[in-house]
Formats: sequence, structure tokens, C-alpha cells
Amino acid sequence: MSKLVVRSFGISLDGYGAGPNQDLKNPLGVRGMELMDWFLHTRVWTKMHGQGDGETGIDNEIAELGFAGFGAWILGRNMFGPIRGPWPDESWKGWWGEEPPYHTPVFVLTHYPRTPLKMAGGTEFRFVTDGIHSALEQARAAAGDKDIRVGGGVETIRQYLTAGLIDEMHLAVRPMLAGRGENLMSGLDLRSLGYAVVDSFPGERATHVIIRRR
Amino acid sequence: MSKLVVRSFGISLDGYGAGPNQDLKNPLGVRGMELMDWFLHTRVWTKMHGQGDGETGIDNEIAELGFAGFGAWILGRNMFGPIRGPWPDESWKGWWGEEPPYHTPVFVLTHYPRTPLKMAGGTEFRFVTDGIHSALEQARAAAGDKDIRVGGGVETIRQYLTAGLIDEMHLAVRPMLAGRGENLMSGLDLRSLGYAVVDSFPGERATHVIIRRR
Repeated sequence: MSKLVVRSFGISLDGYGAGPNQDLKNPLGVRGMELMDWFLHTRVWTKMHGQGDGETGIDNEIAELGFAGFGAWILGRNMFGPIRGPWPDESWKGWWGEEPPYHTPVFVLTHYPRTPLKMAGGTEFRFVTDGIHSALEQARAAAGDKDIRVGGGVETIRQYLTAGLIDEMHLAVRPMLAGRGENLMSGLDLRSLGYAVVDSFPGERATHVIIRRR
Repeated sequence: MSKLVVRSFGISLDGYGAGPNQDLKNPLGVRGMELMDWFLHTRVWTKMHGQGDGETGIDNEIAELGFAGFGAWILGRNMFGPIRGPWPDESWKGWWGEEPPYHTPVFVLTHYPRTPLKMAGGTEFRFVTDGIHSALEQARAAAGDKDIRVGGGVETIRQYLTAGLIDEMHLAVRPMLAGRGENLMSGLDLRSLGYAVVDSFPGERATHVIIRRR
């Protein structure tokens, strides 16, 4: 069966996966981009954004795995956009422009129905209003034998961890203190939920940790 | 002025500095010794405990700094022993046998007065009942221009961090999930308290992080 995985998810040393007060200017919350700083220098990122060559190395290698061969993605609504409450219209199409980097069906968790949204390059946003299990079921049907990536955000990953549904998680731990924001692990007893660290190694700008469900 | 520092303090990836349910068999709480596993292999530790040569390397180098040239130590009472409430008698003399590894005055925070306790090798436990500021003042007087190390545990370090009194902190982040226990950073906004990561580097069995007050 295909695996449900988290990849390239940046957290601070104190466990924050997003800063506070997300809005249009701060997709990852205030100072949230600092959590992604390891990723912004990689060739994966710069090629994706037409910004030149970027760096190769360990950070880049593991970032490549974060986009390799997935059959579907699952995103929380806040990762899809800054809008809260009912959709005012169909104009918001995600943070990523006309051709998002997913190239698969992307299941967006929301409380408010919306018609599916086809984008260039094979990405189709489908809005799921009946919870994380339903989203996973739909993603599995779409993905076939390919893996499914939970893109985030923090709350969505926490929900899937709490349900014991994440098979493997790669965290990029940044050497910084965020102080506030959305904490990935606070109050979650990951050990009792069956998770353990199976690998840990330094990259150029983050320590990479692989967590797996036993 | 001498600095107040934390050194060689092991935490799990999810931020725990001690396991739950400390008792005589589990000085660092249940499974707490896993947090120290990076330290138990070092030459510093094995020499201290007459267990042979031990390993040299990065973990050992930074562990050496944890015992170098301090003029005084401060410990929370739970780090001194498992006894709670008033001292039943004078028989408990710490976890470390007749010659503790401190070789300086050690100020033990407690709510219950007790006469000072001279040990072999220059360690003297002095019991402070009027709070962390008083303990620091006494430690400064004893240390002269040498630095002072807060040995732990978690709650004691958190109190000194909250008061903005720690100048520098070395954490050894172990690639493991503790799940439960005493969390060092949970609910503390270290960034707003003026702390930042100034260095981070991999050792053999832990990632070492240096945090400093701006």
C-alpha cells in the first residue's frame, strides 16, 4: 500500500513549524520563512522559481525527495491560502501561481465546499469537507501505488500524527528559536503514538531527522 | 562579571530534558538516561566513573567544557535527590557518592533548610531556601570571576531562563522522541526573552546547539 509521508517540513529548535499571524504577506506566519531558509538555497527551489542554479548538497538531495513520485498531496486549508470562513468567490487559487509544484490531485481540507480547481501542469485542487480520513481515502484512490505527501500545515500534520496515519516524516530542524507560532510536537506524545527517530544527519542549513511509525 | 551558563544539557528532539516519574532508580526519570547517552560514551564520563578510556571526539570535547573552570554550581533540589518535602534526616548526600564531580560550592534550591554538607574533593552542598535570585547572588560571591553552571534540572533552568539570567546554554539534542516528561522549552518564548541560537554542529550522538542571550 502507498505510504502517507511528510517531507521537508521545517521546524525551529523549539518545535515551531509556522510563525504566528499568517496572512497574505506571511504565508508561513510572521518570520515563518526563516524555517524554510535551508530550502530556499537548494537547486530544487531555485529551479522551481526560475532563480538560477541554487546549491547542491545534502539539503538539496533531501529536498528532491520531497517532490519525487507522489501520487497525491493533502494540504490543510491554511496552507492553501489565508482566507478563513466560507469562500467569498473562486478567485483564490493558492499561493503558487498558475502552475503549482504538485502536478497531482491535491486534497485541501476545509469546512466549506468548493468546486475542484484544475491548474496548469496537472495539479488539481479538490476540496474535502468531511475530515482527514475521507481526504486520505480519496488521496489513496487517486494515488494508486504511489505515496501521498501531507504538505502541511502544522495542524493538519498533527491531526494525521494523532490518528497514527503518518508512516514516515522528514523534519528539517533549523538552528533557530521561533518563540511563538504553531508548534508541531507540543502536547503530542509521539513515542506513545508509535513513532521513533530512525535517522538523523546534518545538512548545510538544517539537521535532517527521519521519524517512522514502528 | 562571571557568566551563568548551562552546559551539556541533553534534550530529546521533542524538547524533553527529563523523563517522567523520577525516583531512586531513575534519577532522570523513566528513560531519562537515553537523553544522556551521548555523554555516557565520552572519555570525560568514563574517566569520572573509572570505566576505562571512553571515546574522544566532538561529544567528548564539548563535554569537557561542561566541567572546565567553574567557580560554583546551582542545582534544583530534584537534581540533588529524589526526596520530596522536609529532609527526614541528613543521610541523603546526592547521587554522586563521597566525591561528587563538582569540586566547588554547589547551591541547591529547596524549600526546606538544611546545614551545609562538605564532601570529598572540594564539593560543598549549600541549601538555599529563598529562591533563584538569592542562589545566584551567593553563587556569584563564591565563584569570583569564574563562571557558574546551572546543572539542572529542567524546572530550574526554565526559572533562570524566564528571569533572563542565563547567559549561554549548550544543549545536546538527541535524535529520539521522549514523548513525555519535563519539557525544557514548551510554553517559553525564548526568542522574546532575548535568546538566539549562535551555533549548531553535529557530534557523534547528538546535535550540539549553543544559545546565547543577546
